[in-house]
Amino acid sequence: MKQITIIGSTGSIGTQTLEIIRSRPNDFKVIGLSAGKNLELLVDQIKEFKPDYATVSSDSDKRTLRSLFPELEVVKSIEEIASLPLIDIVVSAIVGIAGLKANLEALKHAKKVAIANKETLVCAPHLVRENCEKHHSELIPIDSEHAAIHQCLLGYDNTKVEKILLTSSGGPFRTLTQEELAHVKLADALKHPKWSMGQKITVDSSTLMNKGLEVIEVNALFDIPYDDIQIVIHPQSIVHSAVSFIDGNTIAQLSNPDMMVPIQYALDFPEKNPIKLKNNFNIFENSQLEFYKPDSEKFPALRLAYQAGRTGGSMPTALNSANEVAVELFLQEKIHYLDIVKMIEDELEKHQVIQNPQLEEILSIDTAIRECHFE
Amino acid sequence: MKQITIIGSTGSIGTQTLEIIRSRPNDFKVIGLSAGKNLELLVDQIKEFKPDYATVSSDSDKRTLRSLFPELEVVKSIEEIASLPLIDIVVSAIVGIAGLKANLEALKHAKKVAIANKETLVCAPHLVRENCEKHHSELIPIDSEHAAIHQCLLGYDNTKVEKILLTSSGGPFRTLTQEELAHVKLADALKHPKWSMGQKITVDSSTLMNKGLEVIEVNALFDIPYDDIQIVIHPQSIVHSAVSFIDGNTIAQLSNPDMMVPIQYALDFPEKNPIKLKNNFNIFENSQLEFYKPDSEKFPALRLAYQAGRTGGSMPTALNSANEVAVELFLQEKIHYLDIVKMIEDELEKHQVIQNPQLEEILSIDTAIRECHFE
Repeated sequence: MKQITIIGSTGSIGTQTLEIIRSRPNDFKVIGLSAGKNLELLVDQIKEFKPDYATVSSDSDKRTLRSLFPELEVVKSIEEIASLPLIDIVVSAIVGIAGLKANLEALKHAKKVAIANKETLVCAPHLVRENCEKHHSELIPIDSEHAAIHQCLLGYDNTKVEKILLTSSGGPFRTLTQEELAHVKLADALKHPKWSMGQKITVDSSTLMNKGLEVIEVNALFDIPYDDIQIVIHPQSIVHSAVSFIDGNTIAQLSNPDMMVPIQYALDFPEKNPIKLKNNFNIFENSQLEFYKPDSEKFPALRLAYQAGRTGGSMPTALNSANEVAVELFLQEKIHYLDIVKMIEDELEKHQVIQNPQLEEILSIDTAIRECHFE
Repeated sequence: MKQITIIGSTGSIGTQTLEIIRSRPNDFKVIGLSAGKNLELLVDQIKEFKPDYATVSSDSDKRTLRSLFPELEVVKSIEEIASLPLIDIVVSAIVGIAGLKANLEALKHAKKVAIANKETLVCAPHLVRENCEKHHSELIPIDSEHAAIHQCLLGYDNTKVEKILLTSSGGPFRTLTQEELAHVKLADALKHPKWSMGQKITVDSSTLMNKGLEVIEVNALFDIPYDDIQIVIHPQSIVHSAVSFIDGNTIAQLSNPDMMVPIQYALDFPEKNPIKLKNNFNIFENSQLEFYKPDSEKFPALRLAYQAGRTGGSMPTALNSANEVAVELFLQEKIHYLDIVKMIEDELEKHQVIQNPQLEEILSIDTAIRECHFE
C-alpha cells in the first residue's frame, strides 16, 4: 500500500487524486492533506480519508481543525507535511510558487513527487535535478502533456529524440482574428472548450501561456533543447503529446481529456492498473484528429516563453510571476486581455537575470514583481 | 557489427533491407543472400555486398552463381543459409509458406529473426513460441503494424492491454458499394493508394485479407485474445497501430508509410539509430487523421480470419493457403473478384482441423489445398 500526502487537496487535481484513492482503498492510504482556504471541503476530506496529518493556510483555520479533530496532527506548513517520514508519494496539486519550497523539501526527503505544480519546474529545474540526484528522489509529471511525453519516452533516453510534439487545444480563441482578440472580455476567457479548470489556468490556456510554460517544463523534465520542442495545435485534445525519434518513429499518447488518467499514471508508475472513467476512450468517437502549426504572431506568449526558457537562469521565474500578476489584474478587470502579454514582455525586458538562482532568490524575484504591481 | 542473412533479398523488403545496410556499412555485414527467381538482381547484390553464402531456387541458377563467383559458397537451401553459425540476424523477407521451414530453422539456431513473412506466424505460432523459448531466440516483426504494436507495448506486458487497435488503410475499395465490388477487375485491384507492394499482397489489401492475417499475427506475436484486437480503418496510413491499456492510456506509433522505418527498427532493436528517408515525418503535412469502423459485411475476409484464428490449430493454415490459391486464380483472371472470399469460405468449411499441427502437417495441408485447385 502506498502512503500519500496531497498538497492542495481541495483543488481540481487534489479532488481527482482523492477520487482515485477512494476507488482503490487497498492500494493507497492518505497520510497528509493540505489546503489553502477551502476549509469546508478539507474538513469533509479529513472525515472521509482520515489522514494522520493536515495543514491549512491560516492559523485560525488550523485551530478549527485541531478542535474538530483531536486525533489529527495539524502541522505548521506544507513543507512539513510534504516531508513526513511515512510518505511514499507527495501529490503536488498546489497552484503557484507556494508549491516550490514544499516540493524541494519532498525531494530532499527522497519522496516520489507526482507534480502538477508548474512553478517548481519552470523556476527551479536546476534545484529539482540537484535534489533528485542527491537524494535518489523521483519526479513524475501529472500534467497530461508531460505524462504523455513520459510514456512516449519509456525505454529510450533523450539522445534518441528528434522532436517533442507538445500538443495544445489552441485554447478558446484559436480561430479569432487579432482584431477580435483585442475585444476579449473576462467571461470569454473563462470558457475553455475541453478542460474544466481553475480561472488562472483557463486564462493561461487562452493566451497559450500555459503552453509556453509547458515548453519550459518539457525542457526541465526531459532535458530536451528548445529547438527540438514543437508546439502542435490539436483542437480535439485527444493526442496529449508525441515524441518523434531519430529512427523515423513517432510515438503518441492518446486518451480522453480527463485528468484522472495522468493522475493515476503518476501514482502507479511504473505499474499500470485498471481505471474507471466517466467516458472510456473510443477511437471511433474521435474519428477526426487535426494538427496545425501554432500562430506565434497571434499568441505572442509562446515567443516570450521560448525566449525566457532559452535565456534560462531566473528569467522563467520572471515570466511566470509576471504572468501571474497580469492574469490576476485581468481577472480583476483592471487590464485588457491583450495587455496580459504586453505587461509580461515589459517585465522580462526589465528583469536582471541571475544564473542558477537559489530558492530564496527565486522567491524574492517573485515577491518583487508582485509588489511592484499590487502595492 | 551485426552479421545478417536475408532470405528473399530481391523482393521489396529484401531490397529495402539492403538499402539500409548500404547506408550503414559499419553497423551491418551481409553474410548470406537468398532469392527465388530474380537471378539478375541477386547477381548485382552479390557483387555489391559480397556475402560469403548465397542460394537461389533452381539448380541451374545455383550453377550460374558458382561459375560467376568462385569465392562464394552456394548452399543448397534457404534452411541452410538461415542457420549459418556466423549470423546474428535473419531477415525473413520471403513471401509464402516457403519461408516457414527456414524461419523455424533460424529460431532453432538461436538467431534473431526479423520477420516480414506472414505464413510463419499465421500457420505455426505454437512452433515459433516453442523454438523461441527452447533456444532463446527472438522474433521481431518487420510488418509496419506489428512493429508499431511492438513499440507501443515496450515496457509493459500483455496483461495490461485492453485493446490492440490494428490500423488498415481500408484498401483501394474502401468507399465502393457491394454492387461496385462485384465488378472489380484485376487492374483495379492492383492499384494501392498508399503502399507499393507485390501483386499478391496488393490484392490481399483490397479484400482486407491482409488485415485478417495480421489479426492472427497479432494474436501469435503478442498473445492477445481475438476479442481484444480491433481493426481500425485509417485511410491516411500514418498511425500504424495503437495499444489501449487498462489505465486509460492509448499509445500509438506514427510514421510515413515507408517500410524502411520498421525494417531498421527490427534490425536495431533495442537500439535506435538515425535514418535517412525520402520524406521525413511531418505532423503538419498529416494534419487530418481519420479513424473508422471496418465494414465486415462488405469485407467478409475479416470475419473469416477472426473465425479461423479463433478455431486455431490448422485452420489459419487452411485460410492462408486457400487465400493464396484464390488470389492466384484471380491474378490469372480465372475467377471474379468476389469469388476470392467465397472460395476461401468453401475451403474453411471443408477443412478438418488438426490441433497443434507439426511442420510436415502444415506443409501437407498447404499442398493439398493447392493441388485441389491447380491440377
